[in-house]
Amino acid sequence: MSDNKVQIFDTTLRDGEQVPGCKLNTQQKLVIAERLDLLGVDIIEAGFPVSSPGDFTSVNEIAKIVKNATVCGLTRAVKNDIKVAAEALKYAKKPRIHTGIGTSDSHIKYKFNSTQDKVIERGIAAVKYAKSFVEDVEFYAEDAGRTDNEFLARVCEEMIKAGATVLNIPDTTGYCLPEEYGEKIKYLKENVNGIDKVTISCHCHNDLGLATANSIAGAINGARQIECTINGIGERAGNTALEEVVMIMKQHPYLHLNTDINSKLLYDTSLMVSESMGMMVQPNKAIVGANAFAHSSGIHQDGVIKNRETYEIIDPAEVGVTESAIVLTARSGRAALAYRAKKIGYELTKLQLDEVYKEFLNYADRKKEVVNDDIHEIMKTVSVETAVA
Amino acid sequence: MSDNKVQIFDTTLRDGEQVPGCKLNTQQKLVIAERLDLLGVDIIEAGFPVSSPGDFTSVNEIAKIVKNATVCGLTRAVKNDIKVAAEALKYAKKPRIHTGIGTSDSHIKYKFNSTQDKVIERGIAAVKYAKSFVEDVEFYAEDAGRTDNEFLARVCEEMIKAGATVLNIPDTTGYCLPEEYGEKIKYLKENVNGIDKVTISCHCHNDLGLATANSIAGAINGARQIECTINGIGERAGNTALEEVVMIMKQHPYLHLNTDINSKLLYDTSLMVSESMGMMVQPNKAIVGANAFAHSSGIHQDGVIKNRETYEIIDPAEVGVTESAIVLTARSGRAALAYRAKKIGYELTKLQLDEVYKEFLNYADRKKEVVNDDIHEIMKTVSVETAVA
Repeated sequence: MSDNKVQIFDTTLRDGEQVPGCKLNTQQKLVIAERLDLLGVDIIEAGFPVSSPGDFTSVNEIAKIVKNATVCGLTRAVKNDIKVAAEALKYAKKPRIHTGIGTSDSHIKYKFNSTQDKVIERGIAAVKYAKSFVEDVEFYAEDAGRTDNEFLARVCEEMIKAGATVLNIPDTTGYCLPEEYGEKIKYLKENVNGIDKVTISCHCHNDLGLATANSIAGAINGARQIECTINGIGERAGNTALEEVVMIMKQHPYLHLNTDINSKLLYDTSLMVSESMGMMVQPNKAIVGANAFAHSSGIHQDGVIKNRETYEIIDPAEVGVTESAIVLTARSGRAALAYRAKKIGYELTKLQLDEVYKEFLNYADRKKEVVNDDIHEIMKTVSVETAVA
Repeated sequence: MSDNKVQIFDTTLRDGEQVPGCKLNTQQKLVIAERLDLLGVDIIEAGFPVSSPGDFTSVNEIAKIVKNATVCGLTRAVKNDIKVAAEALKYAKKPRIHTGIGTSDSHIKYKFNSTQDKVIERGIAAVKYAKSFVEDVEFYAEDAGRTDNEFLARVCEEMIKAGATVLNIPDTTGYCLPEEYGEKIKYLKENVNGIDKVTISCHCHNDLGLATANSIAGAINGARQIECTINGIGERAGNTALEEVVMIMKQHPYLHLNTDINSKLLYDTSLMVSESMGMMVQPNKAIVGANAFAHSSGIHQDGVIKNRETYEIIDPAEVGVTESAIVLTARSGRAALAYRAKKIGYELTKLQLDEVYKEFLNYADRKKEVVNDDIHEIMKTVSVETAVA
């Protein structure tokens, strides 16, 4: 693995699936897991085995069929959780147990009614116990986003000593700003003994709309794993969107960060997850929304027709979308109208276009979108000499 | 206006409305404009008057009814656009003309087939002409995100000399990373003569999921206006979401940035815009999505029941959502079940809860969500002694 490779840890089937309304049965999960493997994700978090018998079965079946990715099961820092996860993962080619505990004052005090030292002890015990089943153990310091950096560094150091291979630094409440989250990762890189032997992982939530920016800030500062979901689904406002972080790294080569994701499968994978979970993706969703490559304003349409790169930084084909849609509305200009008219058989002179455009605007002010049939109608209403079919 | 106040420039009715399928009639726009005024936005970009007769009328009518906000009309650096915008804005209490031109190499070369000097000349002429109608003139340097900083600084300096009051630095293609966009604003603050007399504005697009982070990076580095839309709607993957930047500033008081937005109206305004435009908001949308304050996993539910702040940084009431929904699914733990059972009349001992919980999981594995009626059913199936109504 190169130093610049960022591992993609997909948690669509765990953090994504635990969302209200997103529950899947085992068969549905198997289809998605196979797809994620094909997409090129490095780790599939398949579920939280101890949480229910159904989840146990799903993790167990996924572990059997995944060919390339590591298969991971979530646990709390609780012996039985870990034992059950190890059992669920027993057929995985590359199994990983993900265990951990809350480390912020808020979690230690209100959730566990405990102390910093006791939380570290529980963490160590969990990592060591997990290590008795599998080599690859990831530790999460829950609510790391609100955990004091000095204490967090101590936690990380102890978990490395206990055998953790990956340290997950979650911004559980989606609280951090990118600068702040990046600083946190940098602090750990610089202050934790043994940090270079393990992988630092970003797990960011989107409560303030910053999950993607925070994950990238983490990677810039030394993290080499990003935890994310297809379409950014997950608890509350969701997790980091896989498609966004992957395309940011691809679009900004000077960051020298790369992934093994086959981006051409992103759009189809997004549709598959959205349909399977009944969790719709808004049209203005980055990368995979229905409008992500649609241009409607005249100024933009004119630019795109002259040169795609004027307004589009990503070639839609790169993410599996076959062409940029040019939608005609009252905001469209002459260039877009002429372009579409030509596509359906009308070659217009400049003067003809002026006349047709006037009529087009009357149409467009009454309709949300002007479609090809409307254009044929418009051509009929202007004088025959002006419209040459 | 304090030095820390960031003006909110809402372009829902212009950049948002030009999206495929989002077209509104004048009456619908008036309702939204009134609402934006009540919400406390500083500037309402009401439309692009020259683009169609319908848009002219809308800007004209909005200008008449808005009480507090500045009303702004978009133009290209074209004389007729500016004249028509001035006409549309004539009844506004505080009118602003928004004019500009592309400044990146890509725009200058492919869109205008022009040179840097000629583009500056056109910009100066446009600002001066706009200034002959109104005092408040905003200039946009289109595709500033991909414009060389040195040339951009020259453009800004010339536009200030020509009379611009606001300089809009759009990341038109959604290309920038937060660090890079922040640096750009910082460069302008440090290298443009007269920059302190004018307001720098961020106008970011969300093609890579970074619009919110970029706008905040801009404000941290000296911008004092953010252009945004309700629900983040807009061309392609949309604009910066108003609700996100507002809540980030509110949640991070140490940034010393504030707005005049009444955040308690955010949720209702989001619903109004979504319904009016038929543009749905995905459940995992930050701040205003249906799930933004919903907790379904057992670990999270347990934490929230003990203390809301364990997993929620924003009090839902702050944005006009009345309570955090605790949804029961197969991922829910005993604490959530006990909490809900108590709410509907069942007080359970620890032993009773164990038995009820086992049955609950069987139910939950078959259903997406367990509702109150299901709990009543579950109580019937366990022995009478364990369930005390």
